[in-house]
Amino acid sequence: MGGAARFITFEGIDGSGKSTQARRLAEDLRARGREVVLTREPGGSPGAEEIRRLVLEGDPDRWSAETEILLFTAARRDHLEKTIEPALAAGRVVICDRFADSTRVYQGITRGDLRRVVDKLHALMIGREPDLTFVLDMDPGTGLARARGRNGTEERFEDFGEAMQVRMRAGFLDLAQEFATRCRVIDATREADAIAAEIAALTQAALA
Amino acid sequence: MGGAARFITFEGIDGSGKSTQARRLAEDLRARGREVVLTREPGGSPGAEEIRRLVLEGDPDRWSAETEILLFTAARRDHLEKTIEPALAAGRVVICDRFADSTRVYQGITRGDLRRVVDKLHALMIGREPDLTFVLDMDPGTGLARARGRNGTEERFEDFGEAMQVRMRAGFLDLAQEFATRCRVIDATREADAIAAEIAALTQAALA
Repeated sequence: MGGAARFITFEGIDGSGKSTQARRLAEDLRARGREVVLTREPGGSPGAEEIRRLVLEGDPDRWSAETEILLFTAARRDHLEKTIEPALAAGRVVICDRFADSTRVYQGITRGDLRRVVDKLHALMIGREPDLTFVLDMDPGTGLARARGRNGTEERFEDFGEAMQVRMRAGFLDLAQEFATRCRVIDATREADAIAAEIAALTQAALA
Repeated sequence: MGGAARFITFEGIDGSGKSTQARRLAEDLRARGREVVLTREPGGSPGAEEIRRLVLEGDPDRWSAETEILLFTAARRDHLEKTIEPALAAGRVVICDRFADSTRVYQGITRGDLRRVVDKLHALMIGREPDLTFVLDMDPGTGLARARGRNGTEERFEDFGEAMQVRMRAGFLDLAQEFATRCRVIDATREADAIAAEIAALTQAALA
């Protein structure tokens, strides 16, 4: 494998199938003999999981948007140092369910000026961008029904309703254009097998 | 009171008497009819206290310096929004035991490049500087003996030994020169009453 596409992220609205497809891609790469680390955000390292709990539990209004961005960036920094960078340095493929793009889209559609704050913090404290990002795209009504069908205990980011998900979807599509080199928009309304096959093929092309 | 000196901070090495003198100044100002909010960092608001626990408890090496700076900045942002800014807006005097200067000095003497990170994060997410800062200066041997004489449960920042405290003292004195307009260096080896009297007089002069 070249150094070009070893850090792969999945992005998209709630219920779009990110976790399933991240796992499917990990299985596919392992079957091809790759060592894979499958992780997620917020969280992905013991310290980042503690910060995740601090952000997601309790009153949704307990933190301002700015404090929340700082906490997510702290969690991401810990995740990067403890999980992602060591795995990449050891030659493993890292697959991450959500990364900085989720923060960009979520904060950016909440308040326009926050996107600038997210980007400045990212440049200062994170730096790393994925080599390849799959944006799983689907109609928010479909995604929301799927998300509600799960037994989630962390409702915070899955309880915004359809209007918010419509804006999130648009935000992810804008982001895919902004970072067109690394982003691939995937039609996520199809059967999981068909989606997994497309993602596996695109990953092989990027790894080549 | 003019708007000039309503946010007052105390800085200095461990055991230099910051907490005592902050309380003494609050008592003095209240006796003069001022409304005073006495607070401290890290902490000072319910959310910031939770972040404080996350940073200070557990293995001292669990967080990198960069993650620690992000967590302290998140706590400071919450403290600023929930405690400091509302009190200042209501016309109260805010007295804070440690603020951003502690982060600048501590991180700056640990690794020179971190001071730049602290300053950039401060400019981006905090902005507010104190109107008046008392730097309590004393020989670290004296300060360390005092700190060890207390029943502290959070040993982390008080367990660095004398060599580190010598560097911290020098760092605070450098900082007092850097921010000479707002900083007053106080000889903290004297009796508490004499120190309190000097601080009260300097505060009245600044409030005038």
